[in-house]
Amino acid sequence: MTTASMLAAVKGAAPALAGAATEQKDRALCFMAEQLLAHEETILSANAEDVADARGQITPVMIDRLTLTPERLSDMAEGLRQVAALPDPVGRVLRRVERPNGLVIEKTAVPLGVVAIIYESRPNVTSDAAALTLKSGNACVLRCGKEAHRSAKAVVDALQAGLTQAGFAPELIGLVADTSRDSATELMQAVGYIDLLIPRGGAGLIRSCVENAKVPCIQTGTGICHIFVDESADLAMACRIIENAKASRPSVCNAEEVCLVHQAVAPVFLPLLRQTLVTDRASLHPVELRLDAAAQAVIPGTPAGAADFDTEFLNYILAVKVVADVDEAIAHIARHSTGHSEAIITRNEENAAKFTRLVDSAAVYVNASTRFTDGGEFGLGCEMGISTQKLHARGPMGLEELTTYKYIVRGNGQIR
Amino acid sequence: MTTASMLAAVKGAAPALAGAATEQKDRALCFMAEQLLAHEETILSANAEDVADARGQITPVMIDRLTLTPERLSDMAEGLRQVAALPDPVGRVLRRVERPNGLVIEKTAVPLGVVAIIYESRPNVTSDAAALTLKSGNACVLRCGKEAHRSAKAVVDALQAGLTQAGFAPELIGLVADTSRDSATELMQAVGYIDLLIPRGGAGLIRSCVENAKVPCIQTGTGICHIFVDESADLAMACRIIENAKASRPSVCNAEEVCLVHQAVAPVFLPLLRQTLVTDRASLHPVELRLDAAAQAVIPGTPAGAADFDTEFLNYILAVKVVADVDEAIAHIARHSTGHSEAIITRNEENAAKFTRLVDSAAVYVNASTRFTDGGEFGLGCEMGISTQKLHARGPMGLEELTTYKYIVRGNGQIR
Repeated sequence: MTTASMLAAVKGAAPALAGAATEQKDRALCFMAEQLLAHEETILSANAEDVADARGQITPVMIDRLTLTPERLSDMAEGLRQVAALPDPVGRVLRRVERPNGLVIEKTAVPLGVVAIIYESRPNVTSDAAALTLKSGNACVLRCGKEAHRSAKAVVDALQAGLTQAGFAPELIGLVADTSRDSATELMQAVGYIDLLIPRGGAGLIRSCVENAKVPCIQTGTGICHIFVDESADLAMACRIIENAKASRPSVCNAEEVCLVHQAVAPVFLPLLRQTLVTDRASLHPVELRLDAAAQAVIPGTPAGAADFDTEFLNYILAVKVVADVDEAIAHIARHSTGHSEAIITRNEENAAKFTRLVDSAAVYVNASTRFTDGGEFGLGCEMGISTQKLHARGPMGLEELTTYKYIVRGNGQIR
Repeated sequence: MTTASMLAAVKGAAPALAGAATEQKDRALCFMAEQLLAHEETILSANAEDVADARGQITPVMIDRLTLTPERLSDMAEGLRQVAALPDPVGRVLRRVERPNGLVIEKTAVPLGVVAIIYESRPNVTSDAAALTLKSGNACVLRCGKEAHRSAKAVVDALQAGLTQAGFAPELIGLVADTSRDSATELMQAVGYIDLLIPRGGAGLIRSCVENAKVPCIQTGTGICHIFVDESADLAMACRIIENAKASRPSVCNAEEVCLVHQAVAPVFLPLLRQTLVTDRASLHPVELRLDAAAQAVIPGTPAGAADFDTEFLNYILAVKVVADVDEAIAHIARHSTGHSEAIITRNEENAAKFTRLVDSAAVYVNASTRFTDGGEFGLGCEMGISTQKLHARGPMGLEELTTYKYIVRGNGQIR
């Protein structure tokens, strides 16, 4: 099927879902989970073909993300059931006002319509995204990375079988068959067919969206996250938090990339930092420190180039810079951050307040790891991505962020 | 000043406003009101030059909108004071959660940063937009229609004097000096300098935004609004509501453009409609009816062309179509509406519920005029425009819709 005819089919199917009862949607999610397991053989063999073709083409880490196992498939099914258990975000009355003229105005949460997601070669995103959009009453258009295409097709076949079983049109989940770059651009420009496009991927995809998108987009997941160690910080706490933020899972967007250190504590703190991230981790993955001139005067490490303070390493690398005070830290973050997550480690409440007030990012932490920026950790129960833009949704996007609202106004003949 | 250097100055000034106290912002708004009156002579003479140049170039209605008088200037000053009296939308804690690990997460309303508005030749929008953005903690970039440029410059000079008096940087209000079409495109593409662009104008401006914008935009104010007269409607009420929606102020976006009539009541209702809009208004502005074939079989009127059901007339013209039932009405609206405001006139609760559930517009009415879609009428106290898109804000945009949020997370050493 061409992308254009798939988009038309998805748009045509969407209105019936927008008005569907919670029970029917939850039933569909449970059927989809069952069908995923029932299709295990087909899905795993499609995935084995994807993996065989991809070997040597992509990194071992990406091969691992691409690979499905019976256990991972079972986790995907469990994910569908968990979404069924979440509250329905549709139909919430966000505000109700009765006007002096008798009009009753209810601002009511409704689905967006059609949500499209462009993502990389991770088969589990296929079922996660389908589940979250279905629960929030949205039809979805999925475009996965080309390496995962057979897997995604097999997963979507199973999910559509579940939809049909629950009395929904299978067209509510559309998969883009064409995995060339052209099809991504086609989605970005499908005005009238897509109400929201969520690009989940690297900086290149995000840039392409900014350049090419004519449909509403939410940029997600680019994180150059900073941690500032203030003069009054508990230095042992700072080391624990930074090790967690940098080294617990460096490939994710909420990992720390840059450490800013107050000049007054740099002579004491930097050796501790090196001990924690390099020496103590000699048998694990030691972290490469990329140091500005002031930090190099205190500890050994790689001299930082200018680009190191504007790079999402997604690796065991940390850029380190000594700053004069909290104001310089805030100014550095304003120039170099992607607006994802930043933290201050401090005992000074005034500096904490200044940092949280002036740092303009989705999540701003005091004395905690940036790794908490996550739908589950924030209590949303799920997540479609981390928005780094300011319009509509910021930070982790849960089910509520996949809805819009309309005003339903009831009268008895009022005129203005 | 070039647009680029103005944008840089506005962006530089914005952070100080984002953290400003409510009192300082309100004081600034009152000073701005005083300065507007103090600059009356300069403003009115600049406006007189604008009006003199525009005569013969634009319609008498537009000349009227362009023209300032001492009374209108005083209304603008009063508007500033009214915004000062509204609650501050910044700093609201939208949700607070304490997690089992002890993290306290506060979802907190914050300004967007820099809000740009492209608008037509109405000098009062200059002060309204500046007031709403200031109160919501946003710096603003204003680009008015070329006919109003001298007036806008004189108004902005006065507003900036008020800002200075309150201890704010005058750069918080930036006026685009270049009124060529290029400068609008420049704003649409000013990535990194503009957090939200609001185009207020005709369909051409909106289309240009969809095509050219690389910064986040909210489309406003295009309204092809429908009223459906159901089989069970109170026909006298329907006539009253339609006269109000069509003829009380046809030039505004919440005016009705299309009337859909249930076939069962068409023979009775259409003559009443004609009586109300044509015969009884013979000495006012009678409304031209553009009728589909079925309506023409009942009453005289202009035969409707296909384009008449996709046109925002903004005039004393109403397209009329007979439909089989509420389902056909909903389907017609889905194909032809701009998503602004639609109404059903009915006594049938089931049809009312179906209409409000399935019509996908910012405001959906039962037994009331579409003319109520307005920030003041909805109890928001003010309005920056009516959003016809689904992302971020839908319908009337008040102060809250000019904010975003960030998550402020406080811990005592938590790691994940």
